[in-house]
Amino acid sequence: MTVLTGLLCVAGYAQETIHLNTGDITSPQINADNSVTLSIFAPQANSVEVEGSFTNGKRAAMTKDDKGVWSMKSEPLPSELHTYSFVVDGLRMNDPANVYMLRDIATYQNYFIIDGERAENYIVRDVPHGTLLKQWYPSPTLGMAQRRATIYLPPGYDAQATTPYPTLYLLHGAGGDENAWSELGRAAQILDNLIAQGKCKPMVVVMPNGNGAQQAAPGEYANSMFKPSFINPKTMEGSIEAAFVKDLVAYVESHFRVSAKTADRAIAGLSMGGFHSLYISANNPGVFNYVGLFSAAVNRMGKGPNDYIYADLDKKLAKQFAAKPALYYIAIGTQDFLYKDNVDFRKKLDAMGVSYIYRETDGGHEWRNWRIYLNEFLPMLFK
Amino acid sequence: MTVLTGLLCVAGYAQETIHLNTGDITSPQINADNSVTLSIFAPQANSVEVEGSFTNGKRAAMTKDDKGVWSMKSEPLPSELHTYSFVVDGLRMNDPANVYMLRDIATYQNYFIIDGERAENYIVRDVPHGTLLKQWYPSPTLGMAQRRATIYLPPGYDAQATTPYPTLYLLHGAGGDENAWSELGRAAQILDNLIAQGKCKPMVVVMPNGNGAQQAAPGEYANSMFKPSFINPKTMEGSIEAAFVKDLVAYVESHFRVSAKTADRAIAGLSMGGFHSLYISANNPGVFNYVGLFSAAVNRMGKGPNDYIYADLDKKLAKQFAAKPALYYIAIGTQDFLYKDNVDFRKKLDAMGVSYIYRETDGGHEWRNWRIYLNEFLPMLFK
Repeated sequence: MTVLTGLLCVAGYAQETIHLNTGDITSPQINADNSVTLSIFAPQANSVEVEGSFTNGKRAAMTKDDKGVWSMKSEPLPSELHTYSFVVDGLRMNDPANVYMLRDIATYQNYFIIDGERAENYIVRDVPHGTLLKQWYPSPTLGMAQRRATIYLPPGYDAQATTPYPTLYLLHGAGGDENAWSELGRAAQILDNLIAQGKCKPMVVVMPNGNGAQQAAPGEYANSMFKPSFINPKTMEGSIEAAFVKDLVAYVESHFRVSAKTADRAIAGLSMGGFHSLYISANNPGVFNYVGLFSAAVNRMGKGPNDYIYADLDKKLAKQFAAKPALYYIAIGTQDFLYKDNVDFRKKLDAMGVSYIYRETDGGHEWRNWRIYLNEFLPMLFK
Repeated sequence: MTVLTGLLCVAGYAQETIHLNTGDITSPQINADNSVTLSIFAPQANSVEVEGSFTNGKRAAMTKDDKGVWSMKSEPLPSELHTYSFVVDGLRMNDPANVYMLRDIATYQNYFIIDGERAENYIVRDVPHGTLLKQWYPSPTLGMAQRRATIYLPPGYDAQATTPYPTLYLLHGAGGDENAWSELGRAAQILDNLIAQGKCKPMVVVMPNGNGAQQAAPGEYANSMFKPSFINPKTMEGSIEAAFVKDLVAYVESHFRVSAKTADRAIAGLSMGGFHSLYISANNPGVFNYVGLFSAAVNRMGKGPNDYIYADLDKKLAKQFAAKPALYYIAIGTQDFLYKDNVDFRKKLDAMGVSYIYRETDGGHEWRNWRIYLNEFLPMLFK
């Protein structure tokens, strides 16, 4: 190929452009049997290991060849979005040959996807794609002129559609932000694929920032390059819950072609986002017809100026369920540290005699489960 | 703070969540004198260096303290978006304490921004923000049902606005994709800030994928997790140029509240995107009133089924300039490997007796310059 020879011959091409330090290495290499081979050129290293979602909680050793390339080949892997890092002489680092990375709070990991039943909908398919917006909206209740949300508009979204779209509000966990569901959660892929299969209704999905003291994710926040943390102020003390319907839902319903009917509103979230979904829906009976609690932090954890949000939960739940929501979905993994809290919460609901759907998986408090729950929850909405 | 204690005490919390291997390290630390201190915990390493936009083309040594933390403090740095990597025992890696990273083709680097005159508009400020869309559109000319573009809608964009918005088409270089300008180029920040200062008109900015054989950036491409490369098929052989106006411009003008007048259309690009801008505007005289060539690859480089795109350039330019475009802007750095080609191109224009604006900076073929050119070009548009 002669086309770009002139450009390629230039040395020291640009500080910010391609570095050739990965050599000819292809990593990850997914093999025909669904094993994966990982490789890194590290001739000076004494030890290189892999720490991944597929190494059973341990580190897997890599071996060095005579050219200084370390590699390891896994067992055949199940269908899943798998993550990993390298550990070089004790130092965790990303695979320099793999541009596919996910940030979870303050940590990046590489990923690859093994196709199959589990990950079927996590892969970008050649189906019509929805549009992702990074949308700013005002939140007077939180005293902010602008907060940022990721919004998914379904394929072919029409601002003049005769029938307005239903809306799902999809909330992240502690330390997360408005990019979490669309990146780690594969929300756009799951939605595109389920809609293409006719398994879920075309809907607008709103993924806001759930940290009450934050405008936006790292890199999008005015005059700030903060390091994200698991602990954030104003996250579980009522602020987000107090602002949610009157600021965010009001904005969405006045700026997009979405329905303002109870039957067409859903709210769901993971961990802290499940906590938010629980209290937002309980404090606004008759607003959401579908509620999803994914590995939810069901217990009150904060105190703040909005204590009324948490007062009289049992009475609020009774009122919420009296309006007969179409779906109250609870899902958690048996290894989740919030498992016991969810058992107790279900006991409370059972004692109230209300109906809900309960889904138990293996695994713990992890994106692997939240992707499963989203994939299962979406087809239940707006029927 | 007791709020989240219960969550924090959990060990082995989740495979994909926070790793505490960065300890209490803050890196980068920007000091009061605009020097920066970089640090990494690497007790087993024999050598750690910094390779950055501020280390003068060399690697700067770091020194180890008795706790195993390596660090280096730079000289006071000029205002700029600075990039860097660590080199640990010869292996390039990212700073594990810094979540701010940019991908350029297949390489990630960390970054930080030193405020001041140069980087003033690169920083997210507390000004009204535009909306970024990841928009799919059909390209029948390229035989693709879907291609992806990043679209910036200015703050307060109103689909029913009385006056339609002007549009800038902003094109990336070889190896780049539809995320390049909004990430590496800080396009959204520059636009938000210039609009807030009243220095540029509110406009829609369309940043498409300029690789004719690609639907989209890595991770967004159907059934593919390709490794991006500097060389791509169908990039400079006429395909993109042939499809541009009839597919992309037509889509944008029928789906957004934008003007279809010549006076309200601009096109600009860097390197390969400058090449595309040159030929698209020359082949469509009277369509674009503003043209920007940033470090442009001005010479024809490919052959393909669309050779008519490159035929009779001089005649086409004569016709284009006869229509008196409001601005033809050429910018390049004196160290750019395309400098000589641009000298020759300007000689051609001078011989034709046509008028253009020429801007020369120091530096080479790099994002540092392209951000400067964008910041300077935008205020000249749609006056």
